[in-house]
Amino acid sequence: MNDLMTRLELSALQDRYVSIIDNDRMEEWPTLFTEDCLYQIISKENEDLGLPAPIMHCDNARMLRDRVVALRNANIFEQPVYRHCLSGLEWTGDGADGYRCQTSYVVINTSAAGESTVFQAGRYLDHVVRTPDGLRFKSKRCVYDTSRVQTLLAYPI
Amino acid sequence: MNDLMTRLELSALQDRYVSIIDNDRMEEWPTLFTEDCLYQIISKENEDLGLPAPIMHCDNARMLRDRVVALRNANIFEQPVYRHCLSGLEWTGDGADGYRCQTSYVVINTSAAGESTVFQAGRYLDHVVRTPDGLRFKSKRCVYDTSRVQTLLAYPI
Amino acid sequence: MNDLMTRLELSALQDRYVSIIDNDRMEEWPTLFTEDCLYQIISKENEDLGLPAPIMHCDNARMLRDRVVALRNANIFEQPVYRHCLSGLEWTGDGADGYRCQTSYVVINTSAAGESTVFQAGRYLDHVVRTPDGLRFKSKRCVYDTSRVQTLLAYPI
Repeated sequence: MNDLMTRLELSALQDRYVSIIDNDRMEEWPTLFTEDCLYQIISKENEDLGLPAPIMHCDNARMLRDRVVALRNANIFEQPVYRHCLSGLEWTGDGADGYRCQTSYVVINTSAAGESTVFQAGRYLDHVVRTPDGLRFKSKRCVYDTSRVQTLLAYPI
Repeated sequence: MNDLMTRLELSALQDRYVSIIDNDRMEEWPTLFTEDCLYQIISKENEDLGLPAPIMHCDNARMLRDRVVALRNANIFEQPVYRHCLSGLEWTGDGADGYRCQTSYVVINTSAAGESTVFQAGRYLDHVVRTPDGLRFKSKRCVYDTSRVQTLLAYPI
Repeated sequence: MNDLMTRLELSALQDRYVSIIDNDRMEEWPTLFTEDCLYQIISKENEDLGLPAPIMHCDNARMLRDRVVALRNANIFEQPVYRHCLSGLEWTGDGADGYRCQTSYVVINTSAAGESTVFQAGRYLDHVVRTPDGLRFKSKRCVYDTSRVQTLLAYPI
């Protein structure tokens, strides 16, 4: 019963995370992380080989906030219109050191011309901790299957 | 705890909604709405500009039932085979005036030739109220990202 | 309330099922079934016509374990990289004879070249029973919409 409620809480956090990105409320995005967080986007190939070569790397929340400012002010590229699909949530941990949580994602992008295609598929590897504000990401690593990144990846996944 | 159970109830309603459409139980579709409901499908572009030009508009449940009869009896176009993917459910409200609920959707269509492609991506903007029969849609607005509607959109989303 | 918790349990089972496949933990796959289980993959066309012509058929857990061994040792084809999207979970039953559960799925495959496309869409028709180890599939039937199976289907869906 408690486990099912923890599952529901983690699921609510993931849903809020993708809703913020998909509905262009990017200013809220850093608020879902702890100040000393890690955020990475890395290919499955590099992850499997243990190669530390992420295509995006932020190791504190200030870097996340900076990125949002950059996106808002230096936005010379076409803004993507993402919709995330989530599934396969699994987690471990008793809460003492938070929870390790894994979720599959598929991101659909709709181009300005109106065509929707699969932009990226992969999984989130998350370390989630409980804070006075609720569950937050201490670490979020996006490991993508799609080895060819199709367009400029300036937005978070 | 109560919030998590409300979330679960709203999620069950959304799942039932898409299951009805995806499994061709269209006669059940109007039963998920209140009699004085609003149902709309509108493009993100028009929604963002505040232009009231939905491509489908029904402002009571009788219109929904009429549409199902029309689909069943005047079905001269190829019937779509949809599968909805949902994510990003967020909601507000204390239940006194129901709940405002937002969910991202991606609709996959499989053609008669057997090819599956992304048909439409977007989000539901819902007003859900509690009735003696359970949670029902007082308003459901489907705001699609895909500006080019790829085929005749006679079926609900 | 009890119904909502059952729903959450069924949802956790489905999530674990797809996570096992998507993250290549195939050895765990048979453990989600009872020993006297049925596993089938069948086209919607055949299912609707009542034609018993599944493209995969296993009627006990030993056959599932054999398949995993075969996949691991006779793996001369390219291994797929799947991501499942789930939605529309509905269920009936009071638990005495388990639960009948239906869920829509969309499987995204990413090729070695890095392109992600919709591989298969369809629905699970499941009979889930409670065992000392938790909920398990007594029967899982994958009914796919995509009439043209695009590549060799050696992996479970």
